[in-house]
This record gives sequence, C-alpha cells and structure tokens, in this order.
Amino acid sequence: MDNISTEDTSKITRQPLPNAKKIYVSGKTHPFIRVPMREISLTDGSTMTVYDTSGPYTDPDVDIDVEKGLEGLRSPWIDSRGDTEDYTPRQVTATDNGMRRFDSSQIKPGLLRQPRRAKKGKNVTQLHYARRGIITPEMEYIAIRENHYLEQAKGGETDPAREARLAGNAFGAQLPNEITPEFVRDEVAKGRAIIPCNINHPEIEPMIIGRNFLVKINANIGNSAVTSSIAEEVEKLVWSTRWGADTVMDLSTGKNIHTTRDYIIRNASVPIGTVPVYQALEKVGGVAEDLTWDIFRDTLIEQAEQGVDYFTLHAGVLLRYVPMTANRVTGIVSRGGSIHAKWCIAHHKENFLYTHFEEICEIMAAYDISFSLGDGLRPGSLADANDEAQFSELETLGELTKIAWKHDVQVMIEGPGHVPMHLIKENMDKQLACCDEAPFYTLGPLTTDIAPGYDHITSGIGAAMIGWYGCAMLCYVTPKEHLGLPNRDDVKTGVITYKLAAHAADIAKGHPGARYHDDMLSKARFEFRWEDQFNLSLDPDTAKSFHDETLPKDSAKVAHFCSMCGPKFCSMKITQEVREYAAKQKMEVNEAVEQGMKDKSKEFKKSGSEVYVEQPL
Amino acid sequence: MDNISTEDTSKITRQPLPNAKKIYVSGKTHPFIRVPMREISLTDGSTMTVYDTSGPYTDPDVDIDVEKGLEGLRSPWIDSRGDTEDYTPRQVTATDNGMRRFDSSQIKPGLLRQPRRAKKGKNVTQLHYARRGIITPEMEYIAIRENHYLEQAKGGETDPAREARLAGNAFGAQLPNEITPEFVRDEVAKGRAIIPCNINHPEIEPMIIGRNFLVKINANIGNSAVTSSIAEEVEKLVWSTRWGADTVMDLSTGKNIHTTRDYIIRNASVPIGTVPVYQALEKVGGVAEDLTWDIFRDTLIEQAEQGVDYFTLHAGVLLRYVPMTANRVTGIVSRGGSIHAKWCIAHHKENFLYTHFEEICEIMAAYDISFSLGDGLRPGSLADANDEAQFSELETLGELTKIAWKHDVQVMIEGPGHVPMHLIKENMDKQLACCDEAPFYTLGPLTTDIAPGYDHITSGIGAAMIGWYGCAMLCYVTPKEHLGLPNRDDVKTGVITYKLAAHAADIAKGHPGARYHDDMLSKARFEFRWEDQFNLSLDPDTAKSFHDETLPKDSAKVAHFCSMCGPKFCSMKITQEVREYAAKQKMEVNEAVEQGMKDKSKEFKKSGSEVYVEQPL
Repeated sequence: MDNISTEDTSKITRQPLPNAKKIYVSGKTHPFIRVPMREISLTDGSTMTVYDTSGPYTDPDVDIDVEKGLEGLRSPWIDSRGDTEDYTPRQVTATDNGMRRFDSSQIKPGLLRQPRRAKKGKNVTQLHYARRGIITPEMEYIAIRENHYLEQAKGGETDPAREARLAGNAFGAQLPNEITPEFVRDEVAKGRAIIPCNINHPEIEPMIIGRNFLVKINANIGNSAVTSSIAEEVEKLVWSTRWGADTVMDLSTGKNIHTTRDYIIRNASVPIGTVPVYQALEKVGGVAEDLTWDIFRDTLIEQAEQGVDYFTLHAGVLLRYVPMTANRVTGIVSRGGSIHAKWCIAHHKENFLYTHFEEICEIMAAYDISFSLGDGLRPGSLADANDEAQFSELETLGELTKIAWKHDVQVMIEGPGHVPMHLIKENMDKQLACCDEAPFYTLGPLTTDIAPGYDHITSGIGAAMIGWYGCAMLCYVTPKEHLGLPNRDDVKTGVITYKLAAHAADIAKGHPGARYHDDMLSKARFEFRWEDQFNLSLDPDTAKSFHDETLPKDSAKVAHFCSMCGPKFCSMKITQEVREYAAKQKMEVNEAVEQGMKDKSKEFKKSGSEVYVEQPL
Repeated sequence: MDNISTEDTSKITRQPLPNAKKIYVSGKTHPFIRVPMREISLTDGSTMTVYDTSGPYTDPDVDIDVEKGLEGLRSPWIDSRGDTEDYTPRQVTATDNGMRRFDSSQIKPGLLRQPRRAKKGKNVTQLHYARRGIITPEMEYIAIRENHYLEQAKGGETDPAREARLAGNAFGAQLPNEITPEFVRDEVAKGRAIIPCNINHPEIEPMIIGRNFLVKINANIGNSAVTSSIAEEVEKLVWSTRWGADTVMDLSTGKNIHTTRDYIIRNASVPIGTVPVYQALEKVGGVAEDLTWDIFRDTLIEQAEQGVDYFTLHAGVLLRYVPMTANRVTGIVSRGGSIHAKWCIAHHKENFLYTHFEEICEIMAAYDISFSLGDGLRPGSLADANDEAQFSELETLGELTKIAWKHDVQVMIEGPGHVPMHLIKENMDKQLACCDEAPFYTLGPLTTDIAPGYDHITSGIGAAMIGWYGCAMLCYVTPKEHLGLPNRDDVKTGVITYKLAAHAADIAKGHPGARYHDDMLSKARFEFRWEDQFNLSLDPDTAKSFHDETLPKDSAKVAHFCSMCGPKFCSMKITQEVREYAAKQKMEVNEAVEQGMKDKSKEFKKSGSEVYVEQPL
C-alpha cells in the first residue's frame, strides 16, 4: 500500500461486455432515480436487457478514479430524509491496520468521507421506513430493477399451454407478476427481504435479498500479501461484480485491513459485508480469549463509519452448544464460530455477542447495517449436517431475529456448508420456521465431500436446490475451496457457477420472467445465431473462445451448422422440414375435415334436412 | 490410420493413481472371478478401497499391447455356457469405413476376433439366464464389485444417531444392506437392472446399471480427423475410464468408423455403446431418406459382431409424433431422432425401427446386446421440457420395453436433455411408470440454457437430482457442449463432474455405503492429512496442484494449518480444545449427578425409606 501510480487505474476492467451497453431506467415517484441495466444487441436487430451488477465500470461514459471512489448517488436521498447527522468519528489507529505505527500516507485523501449516523432518537433503517409505510428511493430503485425482467418477458411470445406445463413450484414463496415499489416496501416491512445499505455507503446501487425476488449471489474477496495497490484490490471487486456478484464480502485479514476496506467500499457499487471478528482478533494479536466486548464494539463502529453494509456476527454460538460439536466428524469449521467457541470455553462465559445483542442492534440501527447472523456451528462435512449443534444455533438465530426486528434492524441468516441433497429442504424449512421467513443466505451447500478441486460444482448443486427451496442469497464457492486461495480465474468460475445456480433456482420457483432469458438464448442457438448465443450467455468470452477452438474462422460464426455434426447433416436444419410437413399435415387434415363436412352436408340434404336420423343397423 | 509405430503404446496413460494400487477380490461360487478394485494407502497406515473403472491400465503388472487388445476374461465363461457358436461373419467392406476402396492394411491382425452368436434356438442374454434362476459369473462379479463398498462402510465407525439423522430418501428404490449374487440376478430378472455385455466383447469387467445399485456415468468419445493412430483412439477411452466412466459411447462418424470401433472395443474394459444409425447414414452418403431397413440391419450385425454392448435405437420416433415438435422452441435436437423423423416424413411411413422391432430383438438376443431406447424427441431447451412429443415417445418406449422383455432382451431408456429442476421428478416418475422400472439413462438434464461453456455444471445439477430420484446412469456433458469438440481436459472435467453428481445421488438415496468415502476424506481433511485428502479425492492430481499453487512446499503437506487461515489461527485446531472442554463438562455433570444421587440417597434414608412420599405444599 505504498504510493499509487496513476497507471494503476488502467488495471481496472472497464470495457462493456460484448455487444452490450448500459442503459438507465428512471423512477416515477422518485424521478431522479436511474436504474442501470445491460442491454444486449442481437444480430436480428432486437435487444434483450439483463439485470446488471457490474456498476459504472461497464459504462464508458462514466469517469472513474479509484483513488477518489465512485459517486455517492444515494447521498442526496439520505440527506433529504433529514434523520442523520455528520459527527466526529473515532480516530483511525495503527492497530486498525494491524500495525504498531500509523502510516497516514496510506490513506488517500480522495477516499476519505465524513461519516454520518442517525440523529439521537432516530432509526434510519429501510425496515424502519418500510414499517412506517414510506417507500424510499431505494425501494423504488429495486422495484424497477427487479420488475424490468418481468415486463420484458411479458413482451415475449407467450404460449399459455407451455407456460402452464412449465409453471414453477415456489414452495410457499409468493412471486408476483409485477414488482411494485409497494411490494418491495411490504416485503421489507415483513422482514422477508432486506436492503443492505449503510448510510455511509452512498455509492451502492440498491439491491434486495429475499425469497420473493431474484435469487442473489455473493462473492468473497480478501487482501493478499503480494497485492499492494488500490487498483488491484478494487479490480478483485470489479471482476466479481462484472460476472454477476450481487454483494461482495471483504474477508481480509492481517495487515492493512482498515485501509483495504476503505478502498473497497469507496469503489463498490454493490453492498459490502464483513466478519468484524476477523479484525477484532487481529487487534488482540490473534488470541481469541483476549477478545473483549469493548474491542469488538469499537471495531463495529470503525467499520460502520467506513460504510460496511452487513455484518456477519456469530451471536448464536452459545456456550452450551459448544460441547455438542465434540463428537462431530469435523468439529467447528467456521472461523468466526471457532473464535467465539474458544472464547466461551476459555472464560466459561456466554458469547459476548449474545449478551450484548441489544446494544449491537442500536449500532446497526444508527447506520442501517444489516445483520447476517452467522452459522458458527455449521457442518464441515456431510456427516455433521443438520445435527443438534447446527439446529440449536439456528433456533437461537431465530430468537435474535425477533430482537433485531424489535429494533427495526434488517436481518438475514447464514446457513451451511455441507449438506447431502436429501437434507437440504429440511434445513431450508427449519430456517423459515425458526426465523419467521427472514432471508436465508447459504454457503453452497456442498452435496459431497469427495471432490476437492471441484467444490464449486459439489456446492453449485446444493446452491441451486436450496435457492429453489427458498434461499435468498447463495455465497459462492470457488474451485480452490479447501485447498488454497482463489485466483482471478477461480473467482470468475465461482461467480458464473453461482449465477447459473441462482438462475436455475429462479426458473424452478416459477419466477415469472426468468425463463425468458433461456428462451432467447435457445432460439438464438436453434437459429444458428452464434454471436447472439455467445452474447446472451453468462460468460460470452468463454463461450466464444470454446467455439473458436473448434471452428476459429469468422465464417463459422454465421454458419448454419455446428461443430458437432458438421455442415452435411444437422438435426436443427431438419426442423424446418418438420414444420413444413406439420403444416401440410394440418392442411390435409383440414381438407379432410372440410371434405367430410361437404359429404355430411350432402348426406344431410339427401336425408331431407332432418336433424335426427336413425342410424343404419 | 496408417502404419502404427510401436511408440504409440507409450501414449496410453498407464500409471496407477497416487498412492493407489490395484487389488483383486475372488469369487465364491465362481472362484476364477477376480474383481478389480483400487486400494488407496493412507498416511495413518490404513487403506480405503474404491470402485474402480480404470481397467487393467492402472495395473503395472498387466502387459498391454493396444495392437492386440485386452485379454478376453469372459471368454471361458461364455464358452462354458455352451449356447454360442463360432460362425462365418459378414464380410467387412470399404463402405463400413465410409470409403470406396477397402484398405485391408488398416485392420491389425492382432485385433481380429472370431465372432460368435447364439446357437439356433438359444437366447444368450443375462436377462434370459436370470429369469431361469441362473447366477452367471457376471452376476457374482458385479455383486462383489458393488458390495465391497458396503462391507467396508460397515467396518467403519458407526454412530446410530448419526446414521438415523442422515438416512436417505430413496423414492422407492430398494437399496439392500448387502448386494448378493442372488440380488443381482433378481434385479436383472425383473428388468430393473441391465448388464451390458455382448458375447463378442469378452474383454469387459462386468458392471450393472439399475437404480438399486450405485449410480453409473457414461462418457462419449468419437474419432476426429486429426487423430490417426490406434493408441490415440484408445487413449481417449483409457482417459475417460481412468477418471470414472462406467461405460463409454463411441459416437464416431465419417471415415474409418468400423476400424476405429475395432480398436476401441478390443481395448475396452467397460461396456461400449453406439448409435448405429450414425454409421448407417454414412453408408447412404448422409441422406436420411435413402436409409433402408436392409442397410440398417446389416449395420446392426456388423457392430454386433464387433462386440458393441448396447445400441441406442430411436425406435420411439413415430410418424405421428413428429408434427408435435413443430411449435417447439428448439424442434428436434437429437441427431438420431432427426434422422428418423426426416425419414418418416420423407416417406410418410412409420419408423422402420418400430416396424422391425421384433426382428431387432432377435438380433439383440443372439449376442446379448442391450437396448438403449433413444429419446429422439428429447427437449433441446427448457421451454420444450416434458412436452407432448417427449412424453408420447416415452410411452412408446414403454411399449417397446415390454416387447424386448418378451424376447428376454435387456433394456434401458434414454432421457433428456434440458429440464428445469422442478420438472425433473415428473420426468423420472413418468419413466418409471411407463417403462416398468427399466433403468433410466439421461443426458444431464441441463437446468438452465443460459450458460454455454458451463453446461457440465448446468447439467451436473440436473444429473445429481435425477440420480437421486432414481436415474440409473448419467451421460456426461462437457464444458464444450453446444460449442465445440471436447479436448482431453474437457473430457476429464465432464467425467469428474458426473462422478461427483452420481456420488451425491448415491448419498441422497441412502446407499448404505456411499457416505463412508466422504467421511474418510473429511476426517483426513480435519486431521490435516493433506496427502490423504488429495489421494481420497476423485481427482488427486488437481487437488494437489491447487494446494501447490498457494503452498508449494512439501512441508505444507504435513502442516497443521491450511492456506485459508494460516498457521496462527485455525478453526480446526480449536476442536481439540472443545473436545477437552466437553469431556471436562461431562465429568463435572457426572460428578454433580453422583453428588445428587448421594444427597438423594441420604434424603431417602432420612425419610424412612418409603418409596412414596408426600410432596411438600
């Protein structure tokens, strides 16, 4: 984190996706809203618009300087509510960065922001507004963002018989045919959805997490020892959101975590989550039993002022649950969970997050930070799935949900981990029941333990299924899970895998607009519009490069055949003949019917035009 | 396919997997049986044995010459049944290889075999034997192969509460706690399982496909224009089976397909399937309407004599079903299906496979070739899933199943394709109902159409689910699906993806031994036995190389920490402390209980040793 050269900004991926451009849709109640979407131009002259998480980075018209951060588009919205105030924040210390001496040169002046918090007696959460019937700009923004998908699908060809045959199974989710701002408000008010949006993170493009909306995905990033520039840290974020990450968790540890977090949040157009105990642990030299509530509380304030949108807090790891993990195959595998477990047993005291929970709620309410109640006792192997430790903690998370709601604080619940397919629904149902439909946010789950190196897939299976059953957000797993730190390619693979799992879940739930995207791509495929097939896919670059490997020439991109069967014979070409045949058959049938009618008519006349005639024996 | 240099054999992958060796388990009823398994040595001195599809190639003690083919281990078994005879086969022609002039130098003398067929009036299928109560060596071989997994699991630690919690949901499958030869016979007799094993393919290691056994996977290979040696073709086969392919389909087209098939079958220790219409079409210059029953029949005999174990035959593509595809989003996408559809509409006649079905059954019975009744009208997109065309064909496949069974011919049924998650179970249930529990064999299904380049994953999700619901074999999909021809890495990725999907299905069904493998790997992971974690995984090479990327040093392979948290703090290390704490707590509880008992005892004595005492108000 030394001096930043200007060439660093060039490391940020800025080009739009192939044949795509950013469009903005305006609000009605709040006309200043501009909701970004990705419009893909197709070779037949039509377009398709998709939900876009990539932020201003894919808009060439936006000037971005990562040393200054993004525009705070929500700042005027927050200002206009008049319930927050500027104040003198806590002093950033060397310890915040895991160092002995503070190096002020690390903080880029352009990244510094004046933090604000709720005025005394005020609550500034979206849940608070929602319960009071207020539709915030954030809510309208989200309604436009989620609804555009539906509107577009409605404009497509419809075949009622087909839609009936493919009708989804939502398992109790209530997916409307139109997402209105009022629907968003109502879902937030009920606690069934959250809008993670710290008032100190005005740069975000608001999004929602709830099972009556599109299933979302999260990507994890973290600093690494070899990385030393703002641009490289920001690029990890940009790279994740380019491929579809709806939120990003900064799991940095070690040195410079405060400064890294400033870089990330100021340049993030998606909500950022953290696990504050990671930093708190750094502050006490990595010794779990030396943690105190004061140090922890100070860390919460520190990160609240920076603008973290949701905190993973393992407040359900209770002293009495810890021994329940003793006979597990893989004990406690959550890092946060094990820190708190160790603290509990070392002091033989209750988890300080549990005992200070109401105080934490007050902090969360003052900044509108959402709880992501952590599953510190999640199973680390199939053998430990859905066991007493896991479900006891989940019940406690349900109790804590109600306390948070009492404070009008938004809550989601984290889930596992490693769960065999046949126990996934039980886990989902248990969460819905215990936590009164607060959104569920799971890591995978992995459906088998025997494929390290492929755990994006073992977990992608479980993620798609739990998304179908009602999970609102899926935390990605990369191919390096259990083995090492993901590189750039691993992050992309993890994000795309989870994006396709979330989409498969939307379709199975019966999200009214979801299959439109599949139909558009399938039509392009069937009509040999190769470029459209690539550009409509989640990863146009890979799709095109795979095609190039076999048929690299440009002419192959307009060829009416594919690499599988070659030009001589193609199953898809035959369909045209089938259609002609079917039309002819139908015509013949019609002719036959017509002829039959004529015959009948003659017969009728012949028989004296009587309506009832006796049948010949 | 010119002269083969001896160096070619060195291209075949021959080394055993890391820390693994081949072991052989002998039969009881048939003591000459030697069932191969892979024994993995662990660093703690124990071993674990896994099901092994890699054939003799991973046994360094077996001498292999790909120009001569593998040993025909089943030859004496077939001989001893006395129901087959040698005969003069049809003459191989230039047309068989798609050429005008026959080049006899292409046939390696070492690969030539004397074909045999059933004696007149005899039926040589495993189904025929099974129905007569005969337990063949093939059946005992399979029982040992499938049961070893269970026996081993029984030897592991058991925790009845855990097993009850994790009990699977088999959806009507009947998974016994012990696979006996009699069980195998009975399942085959009922038509619920098949043993694909042409009498002209004595080189195979028998395996079974049925929903009451381990879920199996298939890999597709095909010749390519650039490949020109026996060894390269055989290497594709060896590579697929090395990573877990239970059967392999040879989908070669174009020139030299007869000769290529000879190479493959003679060197294959797994059953080989084909789609005979591909070759028949070559024989008529690629013009579907020029196909005749005589040419097709001759192709069946040709491939039967070579030793193909199962034929994909699209006998359910009926003339009246073809127009049902006219309004689909993606029409007919099965290559075989579209060939037959085109023939039907061109001639306005019924599919000749349907009209000659009984004659085909007679051929199948004479060689013990299994039907793989093809789904020529499978959906090519989510929009077309479970539609009238698909299900009408499936009903016809059910009728044909009964006809095949009348001839004692083994049958499995092919399935799609592209199906959203919520319709997969309906498809599986429909197949079980229509086809009287004949094994289902599906391609994927893909659960979304929007991720070309990642269709091994979109389909791996569907494959795991349909395997859970009862599908017996999963046909793999590689990352190149829809885009190009898979290379070596793609094949491996496809096989491993499907292997993990099949295993996830076994676990969810509640296969009594399946989770043992996961438990062994999870324990190794938890105990920081890195080498064991790699070697127990489906792909040890990738697992190790991913670990090397972050922590390349050998010392890291014995380190009691992982790359995620580093040496200072590790969640897994904390479990030992938790266990000590739990043990202490339990001791304290026991002490308290003991003290309580003493107090109670005193009280009891004091109250006069009466059993019933009045409660104080």
